[in-house]
Amino acid sequence: MTAVTTYLCVEGAADALDFYRRAFGAEELYRLTMDNGAIGHAEMRIGETTLMISDEWPEGGVVSPLRQEGSSTSLALTVDSVDALDALWGQALAAGASVEREIEDQFYGHRTGTVVDPFGHRWSIAAVVEEVSPEEMQRRMAGMGP
Amino acid sequence: MTAVTTYLCVEGAADALDFYRRAFGAEELYRLTMDNGAIGHAEMRIGETTLMISDEWPEGGVVSPLRQEGSSTSLALTVDSVDALDALWGQALAAGASVEREIEDQFYGHRTGTVVDPFGHRWSIAAVVEEVSPEEMQRRMAGMGP
Repeated sequence: MTAVTTYLCVEGAADALDFYRRAFGAEELYRLTMDNGAIGHAEMRIGETTLMISDEWPEGGVVSPLRQEGSSTSLALTVDSVDALDALWGQALAAGASVEREIEDQFYGHRTGTVVDPFGHRWSIAAVVEEVSPEEMQRRMAGMGP
Repeated sequence: MTAVTTYLCVEGAADALDFYRRAFGAEELYRLTMDNGAIGHAEMRIGETTLMISDEWPEGGVVSPLRQEGSSTSLALTVDSVDALDALWGQALAAGASVEREIEDQFYGHRTGTVVDPFGHRWSIAAVVEEVSPEEMQRRMAGMGP
């Protein structure tokens, strides 16, 4: 078995590819355009990860998160330093992402914040600031809600 | 920048970790359990990809896909042969996944089918059977719907 690749549906995939380039430095690998102009499939690379993206296909149950209540999937973007985190955070907001949770240090050793992109997908952006073992994370969680 | 990791929310994360192990051979890396028994965070490895998983947190907008209409994100599981595809497909169905689209050869050079898992996430399972360039894919798409 090789790999799991995540497929994002958006309304307006051409705009989304542009946004992900400006916000996260995504490199578009290729796009396939349908006769009606919609993007049937595209691939982009963010850091070392390939993501797939397409326009909506509501008849097939493939819809933009803007049509949905809540998020059942999110993306975690891990960068290699706090400086890189601050830079990427600023770049994402400048590109049009909305803050959902401001950057702060978390008990599991990440400095991280969360944004929602204009297409409805939710991204946490994180840098590891402390190596914390699962056992220590579990200990620190005791007494935390809910 | 390092990597993008996908975070899946499910209702019943302990059962889901068991399902993903039986269906896709996922190896649980660790889990963090909240005081109320819910899994606040877990990580699992499928092939070379790490995925994160948690129980729902509806107050934070993190919900199971079973609460949502349609899929705005799906997962593509790529294996290295048609035999591996058939084996994994059988294993996923035996574990309780539901067929959404039967396996067939697609114009872009993949042999692939799609299942929905019992927790509402959608997975395509694919093997590359023909190397097709983006230009050739685009040519083959002409005249295809919608």
